[in-house]
Amino acid sequence: MLVPAAVDLYYGNSDWQVFVFCSLTTSGVGLTIAAATHGRRHVGSTRFAFFVVVMLWATLGLVGALPFYAASLRLDLASAVFESVSAITTTGSTVIAGLDGLPPGMLLWRSLLQWIGGLGVIALGLFFLPMLRVGGFSYFRIESSDIEEDRPFGRLASYTQALVAIYIALTLLCAIAYGMAGMSFFDAVNHAMTTIATGGFSTHDASFGYFEGRAVLWVGVVFMMLSALPFSILILFLVSGRLDALRDPQIRVFLGYVAAAVLVMAIYRRLATGMDFGDALTSSAFNLVSIITTAGFASEDYTLWGPFAITLFFFATFLGGCSGSTAGGVKAYRFLILGLMLRNGLRSLIHPSSIQPLRYGNRVVDPQMQRSVTLFAIAFIGIWAAASLALSAGGLDLVTSTTATLTAITNVGPGLGPVIGPAGNFSALNDYAKWILTVTMLLGRLEILAVLVLLSPAFWRD
Amino acid sequence: MLVPAAVDLYYGNSDWQVFVFCSLTTSGVGLTIAAATHGRRHVGSTRFAFFVVVMLWATLGLVGALPFYAASLRLDLASAVFESVSAITTTGSTVIAGLDGLPPGMLLWRSLLQWIGGLGVIALGLFFLPMLRVGGFSYFRIESSDIEEDRPFGRLASYTQALVAIYIALTLLCAIAYGMAGMSFFDAVNHAMTTIATGGFSTHDASFGYFEGRAVLWVGVVFMMLSALPFSILILFLVSGRLDALRDPQIRVFLGYVAAAVLVMAIYRRLATGMDFGDALTSSAFNLVSIITTAGFASEDYTLWGPFAITLFFFATFLGGCSGSTAGGVKAYRFLILGLMLRNGLRSLIHPSSIQPLRYGNRVVDPQMQRSVTLFAIAFIGIWAAASLALSAGGLDLVTSTTATLTAITNVGPGLGPVIGPAGNFSALNDYAKWILTVTMLLGRLEILAVLVLLSPAFWRD
Repeated sequence: MLVPAAVDLYYGNSDWQVFVFCSLTTSGVGLTIAAATHGRRHVGSTRFAFFVVVMLWATLGLVGALPFYAASLRLDLASAVFESVSAITTTGSTVIAGLDGLPPGMLLWRSLLQWIGGLGVIALGLFFLPMLRVGGFSYFRIESSDIEEDRPFGRLASYTQALVAIYIALTLLCAIAYGMAGMSFFDAVNHAMTTIATGGFSTHDASFGYFEGRAVLWVGVVFMMLSALPFSILILFLVSGRLDALRDPQIRVFLGYVAAAVLVMAIYRRLATGMDFGDALTSSAFNLVSIITTAGFASEDYTLWGPFAITLFFFATFLGGCSGSTAGGVKAYRFLILGLMLRNGLRSLIHPSSIQPLRYGNRVVDPQMQRSVTLFAIAFIGIWAAASLALSAGGLDLVTSTTATLTAITNVGPGLGPVIGPAGNFSALNDYAKWILTVTMLLGRLEILAVLVLLSPAFWRD
Repeated sequence: MLVPAAVDLYYGNSDWQVFVFCSLTTSGVGLTIAAATHGRRHVGSTRFAFFVVVMLWATLGLVGALPFYAASLRLDLASAVFESVSAITTTGSTVIAGLDGLPPGMLLWRSLLQWIGGLGVIALGLFFLPMLRVGGFSYFRIESSDIEEDRPFGRLASYTQALVAIYIALTLLCAIAYGMAGMSFFDAVNHAMTTIATGGFSTHDASFGYFEGRAVLWVGVVFMMLSALPFSILILFLVSGRLDALRDPQIRVFLGYVAAAVLVMAIYRRLATGMDFGDALTSSAFNLVSIITTAGFASEDYTLWGPFAITLFFFATFLGGCSGSTAGGVKAYRFLILGLMLRNGLRSLIHPSSIQPLRYGNRVVDPQMQRSVTLFAIAFIGIWAAASLALSAGGLDLVTSTTATLTAITNVGPGLGPVIGPAGNFSALNDYAKWILTVTMLLGRLEILAVLVLLSPAFWRD
């Protein structure tokens, strides 16, 4: 909060006082809690880990909302929490119309929250969720003792240091590239932070439509793709010189569906409109990569590209990137495992006696992991249906309600339709809808199951 | 075919010659095949069973299309096959506008095809698919030898006789009830056949909107509900006096979601419009039961009931009835098993060592059955996405393309949106879309997996 305070002070905007005040309040509360619990033993149970992870994100969401609520922007409570949770979950849906006129400190606060959220998401996905057997494989051998004992030079610490270094380095590279492609210094820094977080917040209402030329878009494509790949690749390379995470089979699946979607879209537009293929490829690549990696930027209103584009973007919203990255969605490794389950299952219907193990690269996917993927799929569809019904009961039409909840649960950003589509934003929704979507974004970000566990009666028994 | 021929002859419509001609052609081809294969041993393999089931339905679809193609109606090939497959799969989507002016023989042919299709669906679901380990539990102890040896007085024969008797009795009862509620003799007979088949073909463009008063609608509700319950209940009662199939836990799930949907809709309409609660309950019950049981009749255009109704009907299209009935959709037993898998799975995330067996009533759901349900869900979503993309590539908008494929794969009937919604029909679609939907209806009817098995390389190896 002191960073946007400094920026606003530099630009002479009175919001700096709000940021300082919020910073003091947050520090005060935080230090009080820390002092009150100092010296207590950590509780190392799985249950407690679920509880801490969910509380951490909920708290971060509320704290992040303070400046939105208190600053000259004066968002109401529901909007402030929505914007903050949209930031830390790296969703990127915004309730603010008129970004171009916002004070620089507030714009930076949005980008910073998203950037910090992205870092948390990677740490969560790489280190913690696999330990809780939710959300993917771990490429790291981390025992829970590494975490419980807070060993400063343990494996976890060196992995975390490497992660932070890589995250900062990628952001700097991205900012320089954006700058060279024509963005102003302020825009380049903000968009670099929200690109590496695959978040999607922009400093302009028109998002990437504000910038001229193809170069900016291709820089975006490259860094969004990099950020949707597993960070384990670079971490393991940096820490131990190993490159075996590159053989993670989800990477091929991810690159495969991105390439297929972009090419089909570009060829379709070339055939349907006769436009230049380079233009078709650029705009298709930027906007589809933006949706699939769950960044959620837009360079134009792709819902004007015709019915096929709309349906393709609808289904692309489900996809997501790789596990161990900032991307949300169903994710490539789940599609791979579901596809393998289908192939093996069909085979066993034909030859009932042959049940073959399911191979993910050179590992065997144990029944526990298959179950976890299945659970995710069931919960995903169930929550999508329930939240959509709840939104439409508040008056939103079918496309708006189903795509608002979908884009929230996958942490993508824009939905479809005139209200929340790439040309719109979420400011027109009422408080009721904003609260539902806020919860849905948190659910999606914590891989759904981590939150549902807290809601199951078994969690609270004993 | 000779039945509609007789009806058209009685009413003096020249189509009777077409029906007689088609009948002779079909018999000729059929008898030739029978003669050519007479005396050959049955091949008893699982693979052959899949092959026969799929071919049977595809052939029935083509043969049923003959009169649509040849009669005075003169449907083109794609429309004729679509209408016929929509009938035998008990989907009930129609490409014919102007039903009220159609010759009686043709109307009866549509209803008859649907009625026969419904009988086939039940036999498939009760006896054959469980043997192939697709589509639900069997409440009958049938060994494959019962089928291979064609024992005339074996268990299978007595079950089949009971099924046919019950199916005819229910249809007669339904026709009498419709007649007493005010339908003409011809309408009562036709609607009884398509009600018991949960098919949804009507003799009027306005479907049940043609009829006056609440009585007709409630008769429809009662018989659609009866037809969506497992026929094993009545068969086992008739053959061996047992009533234990009544304890099938999917029945409670089915009744539960029907009641919940109808009540929520009726109360919502009462609150939103202030209309009479009896009227709200009647129209909500009829149209939602019609969609959930996958019949697909409509008494009015429920898409005019506002956004909540549209979203509710959208998700209701997924539900379906019980296994062992004429209903399609995902079906109650799958929702029950998926729900139990979710509950057990969440519990095992909290207590990793405790893995409890999954209980369906007093049976244990073995991993094979869990896998089969999961496979179905994966394949369902995958085919829905692929078919929707294909339709929208042909120019249909998001809502039309996604609900056309959804209503086809669940064998419901109407979709959403102005074109294929309850007030429209499928005649405006082009041939390309009709062929895709024809294949999708067959896929849905054969529980998807039975068809996918034929498309997997493992099927054709050796």
